[in-house]
Parts: sequence; structure tokens; C-alpha cells
Amino acid sequence: MSTYTAINLIARPAPGPIPANVFEVVKKDVPSVEDGQILVKQTHMSLDPAMIGWMNPDPESYIPPVALGDVMRSSGLGEVVESQNPGFAVGDRVMGMTGWSEYILSNGEGLRKVQPGLDAEMVLSVFALPGLTATQGLFGFGNPKPGETILISGAAGSVGSIVGQLAKAEGLDVIGVAGSDEKCKWLVNDLGFDGAINYKSDDIDAKIKELAPKGVDIYFENTGGPIQHHAIDNMNAHGRVVVCGMISDYAAETPSAGPNWIPIIKKRITIQGYAMPDHFPQLAELVGKLTPYVMQGKVKYRAHVLEGLESAIDGLNMLLTGGNNGKLIVKL
Amino acid sequence: MSTYTAINLIARPAPGPIPANVFEVVKKDVPSVEDGQILVKQTHMSLDPAMIGWMNPDPESYIPPVALGDVMRSSGLGEVVESQNPGFAVGDRVMGMTGWSEYILSNGEGLRKVQPGLDAEMVLSVFALPGLTATQGLFGFGNPKPGETILISGAAGSVGSIVGQLAKAEGLDVIGVAGSDEKCKWLVNDLGFDGAINYKSDDIDAKIKELAPKGVDIYFENTGGPIQHHAIDNMNAHGRVVVCGMISDYAAETPSAGPNWIPIIKKRITIQGYAMPDHFPQLAELVGKLTPYVMQGKVKYRAHVLEGLESAIDGLNMLLTGGNNGKLIVKL
Repeated sequence: MSTYTAINLIARPAPGPIPANVFEVVKKDVPSVEDGQILVKQTHMSLDPAMIGWMNPDPESYIPPVALGDVMRSSGLGEVVESQNPGFAVGDRVMGMTGWSEYILSNGEGLRKVQPGLDAEMVLSVFALPGLTATQGLFGFGNPKPGETILISGAAGSVGSIVGQLAKAEGLDVIGVAGSDEKCKWLVNDLGFDGAINYKSDDIDAKIKELAPKGVDIYFENTGGPIQHHAIDNMNAHGRVVVCGMISDYAAETPSAGPNWIPIIKKRITIQGYAMPDHFPQLAELVGKLTPYVMQGKVKYRAHVLEGLESAIDGLNMLLTGGNNGKLIVKL
Repeated sequence: MSTYTAINLIARPAPGPIPANVFEVVKKDVPSVEDGQILVKQTHMSLDPAMIGWMNPDPESYIPPVALGDVMRSSGLGEVVESQNPGFAVGDRVMGMTGWSEYILSNGEGLRKVQPGLDAEMVLSVFALPGLTATQGLFGFGNPKPGETILISGAAGSVGSIVGQLAKAEGLDVIGVAGSDEKCKWLVNDLGFDGAINYKSDDIDAKIKELAPKGVDIYFENTGGPIQHHAIDNMNAHGRVVVCGMISDYAAETPSAGPNWIPIIKKRITIQGYAMPDHFPQLAELVGKLTPYVMQGKVKYRAHVLEGLESAIDGLNMLLTGGNNGKLIVKL
């Protein structure tokens, strides 16, 4: 009987970098497949900022935490290698919440088939959580109008980079905030952003005023931190703030203070937080909205690919530091 | 030729209490009324928190500041004492942006007639800015549902007290935050609130948890300050925050820090700032929504009446300290 590797969560990480010892790498026997089941060999795992929130219990969260001793939760893509389920054939490619595991035994529930011929990195970078999150946030809450200006934090991240490209395709002026000159160049030269701000070296407020002389109509928040204060300060009346992520605060001992609310009244701002599980019922609609942009070549992506299951642990910490250049994917 | 008194704004107040020397009390000649004009003798002036924002230029504001040397801006109610305008007869009662002045010469624009028989204090406390602001905020943005819980800061204020009564009439659990035991008793015993919190003496967080065991669905913000942090902490998923006023911060040297945004994502909270000038086109609709509640005796009010034009100066400062008990009205 052959074995495979999985990684379990065995302790709750304290705020800050996630130490390797909260995980346990385990060997398991490849299970036998019973009636109604399929066995999936995972080929690509997605690493997403939301995973950091899933590692600790939180009464406020939209999703229960990963139980201690359970396989770490993640989404991914794999191939059906055995099937006793009439809905799936050997060779089918499927995606879903596969977890940190080389093999997954499933009754098929929650797994979606992936069209043959679609590149796995493209699927996980665009048609999985990042693209759907970007589509819901921008169109479901941002109410973008041609000629308006959108400012995006974490703009080189998996969600931010797609939000910016969709907004550009809709005729908005798009300004991205990222953490390196290399990322800023990528946003402007490769993705067609109108401007980019390096929050580590630029005077953020001055740069927003320079790049958005008409003010900011939509602020798409992926990071938290000081950028949000400058964004609110530079917003136009009836501005919309879409709060998608707060990666800079997720692992902070003390989360940073938010902006004072007086401008929210004066400028009649709407701030909307969201999380994708609320929108899974509209998945088909979201895919339908996103697909034409992708087919017209308007959504470029880049994947930052790590090799081997255990590289996922370092990968999670890259999300915290912004050390990744592109959508983090672990290739198995 | 007889004279009358008006008060001009002659300097911009610094943050903090508003000193009397930013105003100048002036004597003017009662003007002659020309074709198309009316002369209104003001009987009651309304003092509202928004007025503090009108005293300083602010590029972010929804309304230009009062120009230096101009009569201080305010709303009020009066009686037509002379008319050369076919739309108004001597004896008509009118309300509008009358300003700090015993007499107003007008072409009638922006003045609305007031039904005879309606008590002036009731009109300014319920059917003027406070009631319309409460109606727009609660129904236009709060999306109240029977059985939900609403928490209201500045609950004994002119807007908050009406918001709470409208919510109560809609079948919500209503909790008010106010600054004295007397105000808290008034909210519960006279207005029918389900609970009240004295922010000066109660443990705000513990008291919210005690009075709102199911959590808070709507937070109606009139004050700013620490209450908003506790409100966000105790909010339910899909909670709505309606940001109507930030009186505790309007005159502060350094506005207080807002809450961190992580709970906005986790609980998918909507925060909506608003200002009434945006909603003046829907005035008739708002009055129509509010009137049935008033006619059924569901909206009680109390007026805090000051006597004489010059008492308005102290009155403005009462709004900053919460020194008023009820809707501030200056009787001329």
C-alpha cells in the first residue's frame, strides 16, 4: 500500500510570522475508494490571505476555523485518479477546497470540474478565489463608472491586480499601491495601470494627489495600514470603499487604528466589507461576468510558483510580508 | 423706521468651545418690502449640530461655509408680516433657512408653509431637520427589520431620540447611549427604549452585551468617540452602520481614531455616511413616511427652549457638551 503526505494544523499561531511548528507533516496510506467516492491527486494548491484567518477561532468570522489535528484548509486543483462515482471519470480535472494534502478522498461534493486545456496556474490565478473576489468586489460593491478614479491597495496581489485590470477595461483611471518598484513597474508597464505608488518609498498622500488630480471615487482595500487614511482623505463625495482584505493587520499584535469617521459624513462615503462565502450562490453569475474580460485578453496574471507540499508553510508567510510576486501557487 | 437684531459670523472659531467673539450682534433697519418679496418675523430658531460645521471652510463639506460678515446660518420658523408676493399672505407661518435674525426679507424661495395649528416646537423638533434626518437615516440606510437590535449614540439628541422611537414602532429592540442618568431614564421611561447606557458612568461594552444579548444589527452614529469601537465589536454579521453625526469630534483639536477595519470584513458590515442636503429632493416622501408615526403618537419629543436671539451663542456650545435636554430651540 502506498503512502502520501499531508500537513495538519496542530497549534494556533500567535500574531506575527507563522512558525512551522504549528503544522505537522504526516504520512498517510492512500485510502481505498468506496461506492460514490473519488480519489483526487492534487496537482496545484492555492495560497490565499484568507487562510491566515482560518487558523484561529474567531466568533466573528464567516467560517469556522480549521480544527486542530485536521488537514490545513486551502483550495486547489487536481486530477481524478480513481472513481466509484458516476459523476466523475478518471482523468477529470477538478477544483475545490482540497487542503494541504497530496491526495483527497471525496464524495464529489463541492468539487467543480475544470475545462481541459485551461492552464492550471491560470485557473487558480484568475478563475478561482482571486478573480471571483475581484469581480464581486468591483462590480457588486464598487459601482464603477467610466472616467472615475479607483485606488487599489495590495494592487500587485492576486485580487488587486485583477480589480485594476477590470476597472481599466471599464474605462476608469486606475492607481495601484504596492510594496516594491518592481511591482509598481509591473502594474503600469504590463497591466496597464495609469499609475502606481510604492508605499515603502513614496510620499503616499502627495503621490495620490499627483496621480488622482480629480480625487478618488473608489478605494479598494486589500491591506489596511496607513494607506487607508490617505485614501479616505483624498476621496470624492459619494465615494465607495470596498473592504476586501486587511493583510497588514491580520497577524499584527495590535491592529492599526482606522480613520476618523468625520469624512464619511462630509463626503457621504459608503464602506462595504465582504467575504466570498456569502457570494458562492452567485458563482455562475460571477464567472459569467469575468469570462469575457479574460477571453478578450484583458486580465493578465502572474503566478509565483513554489514546489512541493511543504513549501506552503513558507508561502503563507510570504503573504504576510508581500514577499511573493504574483499569485502564490504550490505545485505538487 | 424701526430696527431689529441679527447676529453675524465675523471670525472662524478654532477647535473647542465656540467663543462669543466670533459673532457680532448688529442692529439693522427693518427693510421695505418690494415687489415679489415678503418680510418674515422669526419666532423660533433651531440649533443643530450641523451648524458647527458651517462655521469653517472645508473643501470636503457638502455645503459652503457661512461667509464672514454674513448672518449666521440656521433653520427656523416665523410669520409673514408683510407680503408683496402672491404666494404668501400676511399671517402665513413659514419655515426655512432663516438665520440668526429677528426679521428676514425673502422672495419666498426655499420657504415652506407650515400648517396652522401645529405647535412651533413640535414642528422644529419633529418635522424639521431632526425628524427628516432620522427618517432618511433609519429607513434609507439602516434597513431595519422587526426583531433586530439597534444601538443609537446621542440617543437623547434631536435625531437619535426620533430614530429610536421609529425603530421601536417597527418592532426593533432599541438601546440608546446618552450622557446622563436623567437622559437615560427619559429614553426608557418616556420614549419606550428597551435599554439605555450612560457612557459617562457605565462600562459601555459590558452594558451593550447585557442589553443586546443577540448582538447589534444597526448602529446609528450621532457622536463618534469610544462608543463606535464598542458598537463595531458587538455587531452581528451583515450589520449596518449609519453615520449621521460626530458631534464629539467636530470641535476636537485631534479627531479620535476610528475602529480597525478587520471586523468590517469578518462581519461584512456596511458603513454609510449621509448628509441631508442630498435628500432634499425627497423631502415630500420623507415627510410622508414620518407623518403616520407622528399622527399615531409614536414620536414624542422634548424641546430645550432658550429665550432671545443672543442665547443662541451659548446654545451652540450646549450641543458640543451635551448640556441640552432635548431639541434646542431659541424663542424670539
